[in-house]
Amino acid sequence: MLEQKENRVEKISLANWTQVIKPPALRSIHSIISRPGILSFALGQPASDLFPVEKLSKAAAKLLAINSSGLQYELPSQRLKSQIVELMALRGVACEKEQIFLTAGAQQAMALLARLLLNNSGQVLTEEVTYEGLYMVISPYLPNIWTVSTDLESGMNIEAIEQLLQTGARPAFIYSITDGHNPLGISMRSDKRVRLVEIARQYRIPIIEDDAYGFVYYESASEPPLRALDEEWVLYVGSFSKILAPGLRVGWIVAPEELISKLSFIKQAIDIDVSTLSQQIISTFLDEGFLPDHLVKLREGYKLRRDAMLEALDKYFPKEARWRRPTNGIFIWIELPDRVDTNELFRIAVERENVAFIPGHVFSINESDYPTHCMRLNFSNCPAEQIEEGIIRLARVLDSFPAGR
Amino acid sequence: MLEQKENRVEKISLANWTQVIKPPALRSIHSIISRPGILSFALGQPASDLFPVEKLSKAAAKLLAINSSGLQYELPSQRLKSQIVELMALRGVACEKEQIFLTAGAQQAMALLARLLLNNSGQVLTEEVTYEGLYMVISPYLPNIWTVSTDLESGMNIEAIEQLLQTGARPAFIYSITDGHNPLGISMRSDKRVRLVEIARQYRIPIIEDDAYGFVYYESASEPPLRALDEEWVLYVGSFSKILAPGLRVGWIVAPEELISKLSFIKQAIDIDVSTLSQQIISTFLDEGFLPDHLVKLREGYKLRRDAMLEALDKYFPKEARWRRPTNGIFIWIELPDRVDTNELFRIAVERENVAFIPGHVFSINESDYPTHCMRLNFSNCPAEQIEEGIIRLARVLDSFPAGR
Repeated sequence: MLEQKENRVEKISLANWTQVIKPPALRSIHSIISRPGILSFALGQPASDLFPVEKLSKAAAKLLAINSSGLQYELPSQRLKSQIVELMALRGVACEKEQIFLTAGAQQAMALLARLLLNNSGQVLTEEVTYEGLYMVISPYLPNIWTVSTDLESGMNIEAIEQLLQTGARPAFIYSITDGHNPLGISMRSDKRVRLVEIARQYRIPIIEDDAYGFVYYESASEPPLRALDEEWVLYVGSFSKILAPGLRVGWIVAPEELISKLSFIKQAIDIDVSTLSQQIISTFLDEGFLPDHLVKLREGYKLRRDAMLEALDKYFPKEARWRRPTNGIFIWIELPDRVDTNELFRIAVERENVAFIPGHVFSINESDYPTHCMRLNFSNCPAEQIEEGIIRLARVLDSFPAGR
Repeated sequence: MLEQKENRVEKISLANWTQVIKPPALRSIHSIISRPGILSFALGQPASDLFPVEKLSKAAAKLLAINSSGLQYELPSQRLKSQIVELMALRGVACEKEQIFLTAGAQQAMALLARLLLNNSGQVLTEEVTYEGLYMVISPYLPNIWTVSTDLESGMNIEAIEQLLQTGARPAFIYSITDGHNPLGISMRSDKRVRLVEIARQYRIPIIEDDAYGFVYYESASEPPLRALDEEWVLYVGSFSKILAPGLRVGWIVAPEELISKLSFIKQAIDIDVSTLSQQIISTFLDEGFLPDHLVKLREGYKLRRDAMLEALDKYFPKEARWRRPTNGIFIWIELPDRVDTNELFRIAVERENVAFIPGHVFSINESDYPTHCMRLNFSNCPAEQIEEGIIRLARVLDSFPAGR
């Protein structure tokens, strides 16, 4: 009788790893902040009002007027690869078209590289607070995760990496966000960049360098990424999502040429190819020479928003809160007093003040306690004139916390 | 000394599975047939001249004129999911919006489902000759592959499946192409559909049903797919690639609702989401009611090509060659005399006659000998007026084979 009952509710048997996954926090937050009237500093979305809509729309019309190849399966665009080589040169990186691999955004680049490098139960080395997309990519491999701390001024703790490697850690890769760290907002200090690459070479461990924000800088141009220091051990990940439009889903990998055919196998298995239309729209946009001006506008627009947020934080946030001025990227990381659990704060902020952010724990890859009293604020996706109001609301929630529960 | 040398050439260490992969045959064939002047029956590309370019272009312009959300990260389109529910009803399938999961084409749907269901070294059950994208999807899992034969009139050998399951096979899933089989061109006989679903239920093994060609029929409408017979054990895969435009990369899964959040985790890890622009272009196209007329035109156009190819085969191909008239899809499968190795034939056909097809061995998932004397001909991607010429060229190669080497 019992057996019959059990049989009746038995469902499709899933792969083992699915039993240990944390639910993806960002997707549920995405639903919450879609509510009308909410003022959101939550997601890492670029500013919709700064998209070059008209130029991209014209690019689409133009290319479809010439022929229909944008709608067909095609080999990855050689033209776009050449254009990316030129972009990389602006970033201080010398590379060749044969080292460029097109992907559906930076997230897919990471997924492809993990597939290429990581065995089941393999090792990964990264920061204890980092982009949650890394966790999502590696969790199906049930990996052993080594973490190091991050200095909020200078970036990843390189000495700790070396110690781990000296004492036997052998990760399939080291994951690093060199500029405009998500969520910490840091850009890595030069000497650390040099040292990290030396270590990679010495221990023969590849680095996946996630450079989604390298072109998004506010003071002087970013320093060259790790890939400028080494072409053999650094697998560079770039993206058009933060500099053009994420809805097109185009990014790239710069990798040693001998890895490209293997990446191609993995990519074909996952989705055959990047949307031909998206490739061609971006390539046409770049051909017209529109990107440099667009990047200038984007940096100006984001700098205004960053500065508006920093000013409002100075003015309204409690004295015990700490943060830094990011030179790159679209995030400010805020450390609150230990007693503030930002998960709880999030709930209250959304319910009572209609304002949202991302609680720090979302970015904890090893469940460490540190980020539970931290929050990530995004400044790119909120009009400058609403930023002060949002920070005032958040400050009100903080003032009444936890007493006002 | 030797050690030093070895160190110097040591490269990035890759995941174990990468050492056993076969190179992806279709990509290299894609390069060959891109040569000017070649007449190709090789790839499974839809007809570029039948794409509704103008309507899709207008859809893109229209939606980007309203707002820029097509360029932004967005939650998967609810509107498109509802439209897919309506499409599925035309296919004889009752389902709900909450059971629809959007993907970057059918290939990605398969990759997501494999990730969901398949453990490393897990088991998969399929036909010995089938779509090579399945091999690409499952090979990183180093799976144990069970295969059954296929009857060229009625489809997959269902009795053999049952025998395998009776003697202890426990695959994570059964992969089936019910209509317009790639590469075999068969649609499964009704009684076999019923029996296959019964077996899935009885042994509690999910079926991944790849229905890329269900809407591409030439006589009467296709029979309902397996999903119409069971909503718990059939995971249905659909795609806009063969009925609208593959360059947009949009497909879907119909799955039990409780699996959708897990698929969402996997999808976010792989590439966050389907291109928002692609989703919106398709949704706008469907909103305008353009699909039914387009499908009528597509079927007429493909039927002309199919019939032109069948006629030319009758007229020019050697008497010992065997093939069947496909009622669905875009392929004709040809069995040649045993002595003809179609790999060798391919080389000669391309070099000497500038005509291409896909050698049968590409579709052999378990390296069986059977398909080495077979070829797959595609009729969708060649203008009707060139088909006869292509078949004449192929027949010439066959006539001189192998004597004319």
